[in-house]
Amino acid sequence: VSALLESLLNGVGAEAVPTGSRAIHYGDGVFRTLLRKDGVVLDVDGQFAKLQADAERIGLSLDRRLRSQLLHEVENIAHGTRTAVLKLMLVRGGGGRGYMPTANSTTDRYVLAYTAPSYPAACWDSGIVAERSEFMLGDQPALAGIKHLNRLEQVMAYRSASTAADEVLLQNAQRQWVCGGRSNLFIVIDGILITPPLERQGVAGRMRERVLETAAKHGFEYRIKAVPDSLLSHAAEVFITNSLIGIWPVRQLNRQLFSVPGPVTGKLAHVLAHPRLTDS
Amino acid sequence: VSALLESLLNGVGAEAVPTGSRAIHYGDGVFRTLLRKDGVVLDVDGQFAKLQADAERIGLSLDRRLRSQLLHEVENIAHGTRTAVLKLMLVRGGGGRGYMPTANSTTDRYVLAYTAPSYPAACWDSGIVAERSEFMLGDQPALAGIKHLNRLEQVMAYRSASTAADEVLLQNAQRQWVCGGRSNLFIVIDGILITPPLERQGVAGRMRERVLETAAKHGFEYRIKAVPDSLLSHAAEVFITNSLIGIWPVRQLNRQLFSVPGPVTGKLAHVLAHPRLTDS
Repeated sequence: VSALLESLLNGVGAEAVPTGSRAIHYGDGVFRTLLRKDGVVLDVDGQFAKLQADAERIGLSLDRRLRSQLLHEVENIAHGTRTAVLKLMLVRGGGGRGYMPTANSTTDRYVLAYTAPSYPAACWDSGIVAERSEFMLGDQPALAGIKHLNRLEQVMAYRSASTAADEVLLQNAQRQWVCGGRSNLFIVIDGILITPPLERQGVAGRMRERVLETAAKHGFEYRIKAVPDSLLSHAAEVFITNSLIGIWPVRQLNRQLFSVPGPVTGKLAHVLAHPRLTDS
Repeated sequence: VSALLESLLNGVGAEAVPTGSRAIHYGDGVFRTLLRKDGVVLDVDGQFAKLQADAERIGLSLDRRLRSQLLHEVENIAHGTRTAVLKLMLVRGGGGRGYMPTANSTTDRYVLAYTAPSYPAACWDSGIVAERSEFMLGDQPALAGIKHLNRLEQVMAYRSASTAADEVLLQNAQRQWVCGGRSNLFIVIDGILITPPLERQGVAGRMRERVLETAAKHGFEYRIKAVPDSLLSHAAEVFITNSLIGIWPVRQLNRQLFSVPGPVTGKLAHVLAHPRLTDS
């Protein structure tokens, strides 16, 4: 389990958040999870671009000053720890009761550092076991794709998951596959890379974007397209992504088996060269 | 604006919540808003029953000990203030990173007291002006009706509302009316009381339940039934409810006008006899 190492609230070391925080009451904010590996925070620019885009969608601004403060804190928090998980949160300021934001409310920034998790090398080499969640994702286009702080769906998905699975994969009410509980989902059919759209539900991870960028740059054919059961049943390869793990091949989803390492998954992982969080 | 008077975390006075709280990161909890008026906390049993039912839906337990602690705190917080708004929150315990709840996690209780708002008597007597929100509610049966801490939809609804309106009324993607931003919705057609179902979205307020109980007890005909535009356009009376305001008649919704005081609204308000939060 990841332990909290240090937290900064608006640049000041703090172990607690004021009880009036709109993060507590409404989940009124956005976040990103970054990896510092061997002293280097990975993909800062890409993560900040997504953080900014998400913030704007809920009406928060990440202006130049806030951005530079946040960058400084991300680079310096828990500095003695070479490998750490960093969580950046932007939260709408103002602490009164009521959903209506205060006029001209500021944006609060929380930066947290955690010990990094460690996984068996087999997660990358032999693939993981995933299971279909009993919990169905809802449908809310206005908030879909945003990495916001309303994450009860993910909590509920993990609550209902068996402990044997390495990841739980989620469908929407139309029984289309959308994403993993803490990851995005890709499948490969006839050599073509496919990932579900995130316009009605789900979270658009930065690693998903990096995989798509990598595919485009290296001439992989790819599509963003709905993935019903009937499509997934034809997949030769399945993998999940997030900014901590990079790419994990899925070797089993319920009773369906996939070839690991698949050629497309393997090439993408090779090009991405994301570091492994493993003890071995 | 309501100001925070006092807050208790697991029974201890505290101005802040640990940064690891699952309320902050995931909105992983449920809440209720209660009114203390003239020294008496209203409808405690009814509110606790709803809190318990909601807690169970997300896998939190409100056992006898927790319930008795919470009751004690609700009766005693900010005791010098005769009139106050109390917010009770149950939050899943455990502060590590990751959506998966800790095995055998405890339930944390937050009890907050705020100054009570005050409204013009006209809100009860002449009715309020409501507007249709541009923001559409999503669709998530597994979480619908629960008063949980994922409330970005309500924040977004108020962000897009005009300041002239007293309340914003929300529709789902099927353009059915569901509720107000901080209230439940009732309409009256041909003397029959109608309120929308909350099985796909919305929050089931305790005052909504009390109005339905009152209707049943006093022989009012009522239905829980979908309210598309075509139905609302035939409404003779419209009103909203919550545990602070009781019943507010709606005299105008966008360009549609309603009679205030309507006979059914007036009789229900009379029987409920909810105290008014007004200076006058």
